[in-house]
Amino acid sequence: MDENIRYMFHPRSIAIIGASNKLWKVGHAVIANVLYGDCLRRDRHLGYKGKIYPVNPNEDVIFNLPAYPSILAIPDEVDLAVIAVPARAVPGVIEECGKKGVKAAIIISAGFGETGEEGRRVEEAMVKTARGYGMRILGPNCLGIYSLYEDLNTTFARAMPARGPISFISQSGAFCASVIQYSLEEHFGFSNFVSIGNKSDIDDADIIEYYATDENTKCVAMYIEALKNARKFLKVAREVCKKMPIVALKSGRTEIGRNAAKSHTGSIAGNDIAYEAMFRQTGIYRARTMSELFDAARALAYQPPPSLDGGIAIVTNSGGPGVVATDAASDLGLPLAKLSEQTINELNRVCPPEWSHRNPVDILGDASPDRYAESIRVLLEAKEVSGLIVITAPQAMTDPETLAKRIVEAARGTHKPVIASFVGMISSPAENYVETQGIPEMSFPEDAVFGMHALVHRARILRREEIWQE
Amino acid sequence: MDENIRYMFHPRSIAIIGASNKLWKVGHAVIANVLYGDCLRRDRHLGYKGKIYPVNPNEDVIFNLPAYPSILAIPDEVDLAVIAVPARAVPGVIEECGKKGVKAAIIISAGFGETGEEGRRVEEAMVKTARGYGMRILGPNCLGIYSLYEDLNTTFARAMPARGPISFISQSGAFCASVIQYSLEEHFGFSNFVSIGNKSDIDDADIIEYYATDENTKCVAMYIEALKNARKFLKVAREVCKKMPIVALKSGRTEIGRNAAKSHTGSIAGNDIAYEAMFRQTGIYRARTMSELFDAARALAYQPPPSLDGGIAIVTNSGGPGVVATDAASDLGLPLAKLSEQTINELNRVCPPEWSHRNPVDILGDASPDRYAESIRVLLEAKEVSGLIVITAPQAMTDPETLAKRIVEAARGTHKPVIASFVGMISSPAENYVETQGIPEMSFPEDAVFGMHALVHRARILRREEIWQE
Repeated sequence: MDENIRYMFHPRSIAIIGASNKLWKVGHAVIANVLYGDCLRRDRHLGYKGKIYPVNPNEDVIFNLPAYPSILAIPDEVDLAVIAVPARAVPGVIEECGKKGVKAAIIISAGFGETGEEGRRVEEAMVKTARGYGMRILGPNCLGIYSLYEDLNTTFARAMPARGPISFISQSGAFCASVIQYSLEEHFGFSNFVSIGNKSDIDDADIIEYYATDENTKCVAMYIEALKNARKFLKVAREVCKKMPIVALKSGRTEIGRNAAKSHTGSIAGNDIAYEAMFRQTGIYRARTMSELFDAARALAYQPPPSLDGGIAIVTNSGGPGVVATDAASDLGLPLAKLSEQTINELNRVCPPEWSHRNPVDILGDASPDRYAESIRVLLEAKEVSGLIVITAPQAMTDPETLAKRIVEAARGTHKPVIASFVGMISSPAENYVETQGIPEMSFPEDAVFGMHALVHRARILRREEIWQE
Repeated sequence: MDENIRYMFHPRSIAIIGASNKLWKVGHAVIANVLYGDCLRRDRHLGYKGKIYPVNPNEDVIFNLPAYPSILAIPDEVDLAVIAVPARAVPGVIEECGKKGVKAAIIISAGFGETGEEGRRVEEAMVKTARGYGMRILGPNCLGIYSLYEDLNTTFARAMPARGPISFISQSGAFCASVIQYSLEEHFGFSNFVSIGNKSDIDDADIIEYYATDENTKCVAMYIEALKNARKFLKVAREVCKKMPIVALKSGRTEIGRNAAKSHTGSIAGNDIAYEAMFRQTGIYRARTMSELFDAARALAYQPPPSLDGGIAIVTNSGGPGVVATDAASDLGLPLAKLSEQTINELNRVCPPEWSHRNPVDILGDASPDRYAESIRVLLEAKEVSGLIVITAPQAMTDPETLAKRIVEAARGTHKPVIASFVGMISSPAENYVETQGIPEMSFPEDAVFGMHALVHRARILRREEIWQE
């Protein structure tokens, strides 16, 4: 791994080239984000704690910090440069960054390879310059990065995701803003967040190689339109997958999708069959939609993979959603647990006689928080159960928040994965509580099943590795 | 159509048999719901405005209404009886309802056909009794019904959905509560809502036959585990589909799902291939997941089917979600519009030169509400465009609420379908505004594409009918 990339995520000092006092300039949003974490909440100093050097020849002071006419004028070492100046000025800035000994430069500015042949040439020349100085480049044409455990937001987006175990790479900048919004509403968090842009130098392989070394990262999630160097990626991803799960949404799956991708990032999306083969070979879990990407990432980041010896149990207070979940499990080939006689006897002790006596475990419409908690404990202790999906439909007789608390208590300390679905609830306190306690919650049972399937897939990949090593 | 079923949805008077002053009794929740609409919000008299007769031999007054010892003691005609007494008392009550000349009885009580052979015999005997009196039975073992335009809630669920154009049938009672919760958060509404229970007498076919005559209903949505009389359903659904769209989630698609369904409602789910054929023959749009069911229903209820002469356009401020939507469209065989030279010229007038110049119409990350509005107008006026998907990713420079207002304005008055996706947003004011203005909004682009596909399917069904009539 290139240590320069580690410096990009953990810089001791940052120069923001193009920082500005002018509202609505990209360089204004960037420096505000670096300083405050979230540029719209300047009441809080929750931003980056290292040294910050604004660079702008037309300003003396920016946000109470002295502004420098060029990076070369900064009387200190600079680890990271974030560049938000017009495209024509970027090559000169890169030359100066190189001279200054900058370790990595994030070029936010657009107007390079994505515009055609001429832009591509300028981009290549910049990379050559940077290489001469041993400097790495992220972008151009990107939103920037978040390094959440450094409280570092180098983007011009308006929101800050929460800290958490997912590290993300996106080839679409706009996608990032959507994902952050979604993560805040669904209560999941990130360690790192990279808008990868044109990949002139640093590419997906470089980033995931770093993620694999990051102690806060439990799962890598990727939005890919096209890989630039598939062979390099294959080799690196193969190694990363041994250490941590990767889930990827590769768009341009279809021919018209590929044409749209070409128009978007100028990248040739390539034959989907080749991508499919690569995902299988490396062990990357493939999502087919945006919601699948995050259902899988949340499961993989917050829950352990199940043992492959047992099957998944579904506990529910309502038959319909249980049947729907069973269909989804069958579609995905998710192994369902066959309850042992012992488990059935123990459930008989905690449930009324009408309970389903099989998996899905329907503990009936009047199931109290206590009955849920006791049934969950029985199932998590059962040998034949390797993971649990907890489905609850709202009931007039049950307070959802009490139920949420009892579910979390009952699942505490288990080494088996647990995923919940408070069916039809989108943003209730009950749901939020479960999510903030580390149990992924999905609004519909099928999505919970998908999340569990990602975990079973992970267990299979780990088993494959073991066999290969024997 | 049986007029008795119309009376069930539009009764002039209701007897609640088993009404109770005792909190947490089912009959208590039912009478509170009938009176107040939502039993938990008794500050408001938003319930049923017709005559209400509580029946309970052990009470004199229930909720300030005189209670009668039996339905026969009520000095007035009774159109609808809602029955929430222990199972063993139900057959006697049915006999009395018949004598009283009740037109329809909703049996909420459980403990009949779903429990086995003996229960099934009791159920059949009750239906025979009812038939002798010309009375219809809904249930037993159901949650009840909502007739929203009568402000009538005969269920024991804790929430009241909003009025709107969808009429729903569910074979799972618990499913109903989830669906209501979801509808309230996603701002769609219902005309009628039926938990169909054991279908001892009134079945899915009877209900959809009534829905087809209901002026408020624009779309029928169904959750089915198994049909009892498939031939009757086929015949009725075939006719209903000529008048309005039906979308159905049939669970027990898979073998293990079928076993789970059998355990849940005691019904034999039957071969899925036969159901698939029936859906195709009747023109029912099949959803495969809970979220698909409501994505399709919302589209079909709130938007018109597109002309089949053109294709669908996608307008977006971000390439990634545009590519993802294009993949989804291709998966479903959704026809995408090829922009004419005239349309491209008009978009050139309202967009910067870097716009994508093709469909998906990427109007760029800095797209203002004005640019959205102008592009939407151009696309909705273009001959080659038969429907529009509006995708927006959050942008620091754009206020989402202003954007939402401009999108709604620009789409006003068109006869072409419009579906929106505020990507990643789950419950923001912008999204809520668009939804309350009748434009279905989905959190992810793929779901918006699915909704549009349901509309194209509807257009194809209508075209098929035309051809058959020629």
